[in-house]
Amino acid sequence: MDIIRAVDWSADAQSVRIIDQRELPAHEVHRALQTLDEVCDAIRTLAVRGAPAIGIAGAMGLVVATSGAAERASGNVDHWLENVRGAAEQIRATRPTAVNLGWALDRMLSVACRSPGGVDERCARLRAEASAILDEDRAMCDRIGELGAELIPDGARILTHCNTGALATGGAGTALAAVYSAARQGKRIEVFADETRPLLQGSRLTAWELARAGIPVTVLADSAAASLMRERGVDLCIVGADRIAANGDTANKVGTYSLAITAARHGVPFYVAAPWSTFDPATSSGEQMHIEQRGADEVRCGFGRQTAPADVDVYNPAFDVTPAELITAIVSDRAVHRPPYDFSKEQ
Amino acid sequence: MDIIRAVDWSADAQSVRIIDQRELPAHEVHRALQTLDEVCDAIRTLAVRGAPAIGIAGAMGLVVATSGAAERASGNVDHWLENVRGAAEQIRATRPTAVNLGWALDRMLSVACRSPGGVDERCARLRAEASAILDEDRAMCDRIGELGAELIPDGARILTHCNTGALATGGAGTALAAVYSAARQGKRIEVFADETRPLLQGSRLTAWELARAGIPVTVLADSAAASLMRERGVDLCIVGADRIAANGDTANKVGTYSLAITAARHGVPFYVAAPWSTFDPATSSGEQMHIEQRGADEVRCGFGRQTAPADVDVYNPAFDVTPAELITAIVSDRAVHRPPYDFSKEQ
Repeated sequence: MDIIRAVDWSADAQSVRIIDQRELPAHEVHRALQTLDEVCDAIRTLAVRGAPAIGIAGAMGLVVATSGAAERASGNVDHWLENVRGAAEQIRATRPTAVNLGWALDRMLSVACRSPGGVDERCARLRAEASAILDEDRAMCDRIGELGAELIPDGARILTHCNTGALATGGAGTALAAVYSAARQGKRIEVFADETRPLLQGSRLTAWELARAGIPVTVLADSAAASLMRERGVDLCIVGADRIAANGDTANKVGTYSLAITAARHGVPFYVAAPWSTFDPATSSGEQMHIEQRGADEVRCGFGRQTAPADVDVYNPAFDVTPAELITAIVSDRAVHRPPYDFSKEQ
Repeated sequence: MDIIRAVDWSADAQSVRIIDQRELPAHEVHRALQTLDEVCDAIRTLAVRGAPAIGIAGAMGLVVATSGAAERASGNVDHWLENVRGAAEQIRATRPTAVNLGWALDRMLSVACRSPGGVDERCARLRAEASAILDEDRAMCDRIGELGAELIPDGARILTHCNTGALATGGAGTALAAVYSAARQGKRIEVFADETRPLLQGSRLTAWELARAGIPVTVLADSAAASLMRERGVDLCIVGADRIAANGDTANKVGTYSLAITAARHGVPFYVAAPWSTFDPATSSGEQMHIEQRGADEVRCGFGRQTAPADVDVYNPAFDVTPAELITAIVSDRAVHRPPYDFSKEQ
């Protein structure tokens, strides 16, 4: 099974190879990011997107931006470190609210500063750290996939929302990793992908990567999910998560809550799959999650055409909160967690 | 309050005046349809849409197409009737599955054939019949508005789906007629309009006509309705209907069922408003309703840009069925109907 790689080293390891997600689903375009500007531009313009993939691209981009012959020429550690810090801040500023990006860059900066030796040795350590971030993410995806596949029976009709696949991570994804893993085990499966307004990650990305991997996929408008369950039947829903509270309440792409309510009415199991880093034991419940609003034009004219009055008010929350009572199980890279959820004591 | 008229006679009564809905929400363009070709083109290309509005435009268009000096010149009744029948068939063929269009044209043909007198007299009768169809529709809208407004309290936050307003009818609409009527009574109201994928009638049309009438309106992606109810609160939902079975099960634009499930979970009253002609006592329940699939490209490239892989499968039902148990009340132009619904004995 040919699962796309969203971000990887190029063959000569001198640049960051990405698939340009701005071109999907119409064209499969791969790019080699060779300079700091190219890395920043790719992250800022969503050529790379998905929390884990952004963190990985940022870490690897920092290596590319600071390990060339020119950057190492002086051999002066202080001078090189100054460049590394400057490059890291430029990359961080491309998506200032992306938690994974900040986390990956901090980890890289720590290695750059604390490593012993000269510029060349520190460059090598920095490169190894970026590779470790990539490898850890792939291992996380594999583990979620392995655990999640246990929840997917042979012949399953699976409904998913947004993109939680290879295009969002360094590996096979989170919720979609379970799908890929089940398919690898020889289970016959069929996926239904909500298009996921307003940015259509489901129709643009999920449908594309599943089709490319040879997994049967059908796209539907988000509002058709209830009809699908009633008229044709769905065996399970599986989605990702942006943040999971101590009690299991889960923040994820807007539309997830709606889907969970609909699944509950139809007796369809509703699963969440996310890396352990998404769990936030310090937040006791969804009540404490602040929901940011995104720009109105995502709804008013998201695809190059005006689809609502230009000055009309828009309600466009970035995500919604699904209460734990609607979630059948949560798959992390540690375990399949079953209700009642209590992550407050786990570290 | 300035409510738009989707279809009306022009000032000199020699043409059919429409607002061109293909240009909304960007531009308010009115057109005078003066020939059979212009009438057919307007209906075929959705410049006029909405079941009642199509029927009215078809009837009025038949008058325009058959009452000019040239068409009446011969004074020969048989010849004129032949023209009328030919024009009616051309208009009917523009939207062959539109029940209201067929109904209105049959009614017009019957008048043309059965009226006494010569061509001039029959022309006058035909014109009077088209005006009657328009007037009856306006009266139906007013009556639904009047009855529906009783369900809308002062200060209400109202969620609606698709377009059920002035743009779909000869008058103030069905579900939106209740909104307009409540606003006319001085009630302070606020409307939330689901954008209504795939064709976006909510963001393109409902938001536009409400804003034009001075009613506060906010657009949201269909999948954000659950979040809206949970985070900000909604006092009631009101939607239209394509067909209502004897037991109250209601077929309406896809997404209605999803909204009804969500409303039920949040304890939000869910109302349906539709003309009595929509009630189908011969269909005992929603189980007997066949759900047609619409074209895949409405979902794959509905915004003028490819938003899904070009050959991906699509599930795109034209409507869905909301079971009666989720419907708080149904407003017709006869009464506010409360559960348990039984329309099998009403005529």
